[in-house]
Amino acid sequence: MNEFEAFARVLAQESGAIIRRYFRQPMQVDRKGDASPVTAADREAEARMRELITQTFPEHGIVGEEHGVVNPEAEYTWVLDPIDGTLNFIAGGWMFGTLIALLHQGQPVLGVIHQPILQELVLGSDRGTFFNDRPVSVRSCTKLSQATLLCTDPYLAQAHQDPLGFERLRQEVQVYRGWSDCYGYVLLVQGLVDIVVDPIMHVWDIMALVPIVRGAGGRVTDYQGGDPLRGSSLVATNGAIHEAVIEVLNPRP
Amino acid sequence: MNEFEAFARVLAQESGAIIRRYFRQPMQVDRKGDASPVTAADREAEARMRELITQTFPEHGIVGEEHGVVNPEAEYTWVLDPIDGTLNFIAGGWMFGTLIALLHQGQPVLGVIHQPILQELVLGSDRGTFFNDRPVSVRSCTKLSQATLLCTDPYLAQAHQDPLGFERLRQEVQVYRGWSDCYGYVLLVQGLVDIVVDPIMHVWDIMALVPIVRGAGGRVTDYQGGDPLRGSSLVATNGAIHEAVIEVLNPRP
Repeated sequence: MNEFEAFARVLAQESGAIIRRYFRQPMQVDRKGDASPVTAADREAEARMRELITQTFPEHGIVGEEHGVVNPEAEYTWVLDPIDGTLNFIAGGWMFGTLIALLHQGQPVLGVIHQPILQELVLGSDRGTFFNDRPVSVRSCTKLSQATLLCTDPYLAQAHQDPLGFERLRQEVQVYRGWSDCYGYVLLVQGLVDIVVDPIMHVWDIMALVPIVRGAGGRVTDYQGGDPLRGSSLVATNGAIHEAVIEVLNPRP
Repeated sequence: MNEFEAFARVLAQESGAIIRRYFRQPMQVDRKGDASPVTAADREAEARMRELITQTFPEHGIVGEEHGVVNPEAEYTWVLDPIDGTLNFIAGGWMFGTLIALLHQGQPVLGVIHQPILQELVLGSDRGTFFNDRPVSVRSCTKLSQATLLCTDPYLAQAHQDPLGFERLRQEVQVYRGWSDCYGYVLLVQGLVDIVVDPIMHVWDIMALVPIVRGAGGRVTDYQGGDPLRGSSLVATNGAIHEAVIEVLNPRP
């Protein structure tokens, strides 16, 4: 695994150097088919990571948000999201990052979140989760009434999942804030917040986060409490509070 | 004015050194009378600024969030909020800052937002607004459908102002995000976002922001479009879009 970890760090450094050049500079924002924004920074950063993977591990698969799939039947596959939180990036905010995951036979065994401006790198695997090489873990919070909840866009949660469930959760926690994208997980694994809810996720958003949350002692499922790899949403917590969160999100009729 | 600007920078540096020591460290969070959180970092940072003001300008007034009023009849008064965005600070987020204003006969003539971890200092006066000594200005966006709107807590906006107005504004803009506290204004004056709405403000939140927004060519009023210094809410924009925002926030019956 160490060879792959070292290589994931190279991917983060190389993509980060590209992203840094664009941060808070005037930039053209294009819209993709699903109306989500994309910039030259997204495209160039992903292209550079693909180039490095193809050079170093030509037999590996690649799945990326901006440039599609390579070697879909490979034993090892890299899953890339060059900028998760593009709206943050475009508006000069801090809560975005590069997501890099390595799958072995479809299971994520390594995850990286890299914030290239702050130079923060979170790496998770079965060895644990590390924030700039320091081991980190979730905090113990067992009561919703003392918990801090993050969700990038509550209106999306209300529109795409059960609106009553999310609204009830928001009212039961101590603090709700509308930050996040991948950065909410950076805070979760350091024990700074307790719950992160993402109502709509794609494969390139989910794969890196699963080993990172688990390696820090947290729990991650989809919105209904099921396997996160099969879902299209994500609920991550410190673990202790997870059942309570899923119960509130999915009220019985 | 230059003497006061230089002194405001000293206040930012000295309070920032205290705040940096507490960031992302385990800390006790107390609740004030209005249930808003406060930490030792807030109290120590404000105490240090008060000490410096009393030593340097003993005849000046002081108003601070944590420690009350000194010399209420003074010609010059410093208005201090050691950590605006304490929830961000506690959760290890980036969107907080120290607010420092200087009033002359009740009018804010100098404003500072300082983010001590990122070492970003925004200073506004009648000479203009500067981000780390670089002059900055708002961007030109004249259409709500192309605008980015920030509001720390939309639920507060809905509870304390007209709920239909805020909801309509959120739906008319291109992007809404729940960041902000004072950091939304740091993005606004750099031309990175277009509208910041704060439904509940105190004097120590407002005073620094007024010269900063105006010095960058923006416009700032209360929620209803009136004098921001008399109100208890704030709407800040690039100026060009301001009338449209106020109109949507205050629908005629």
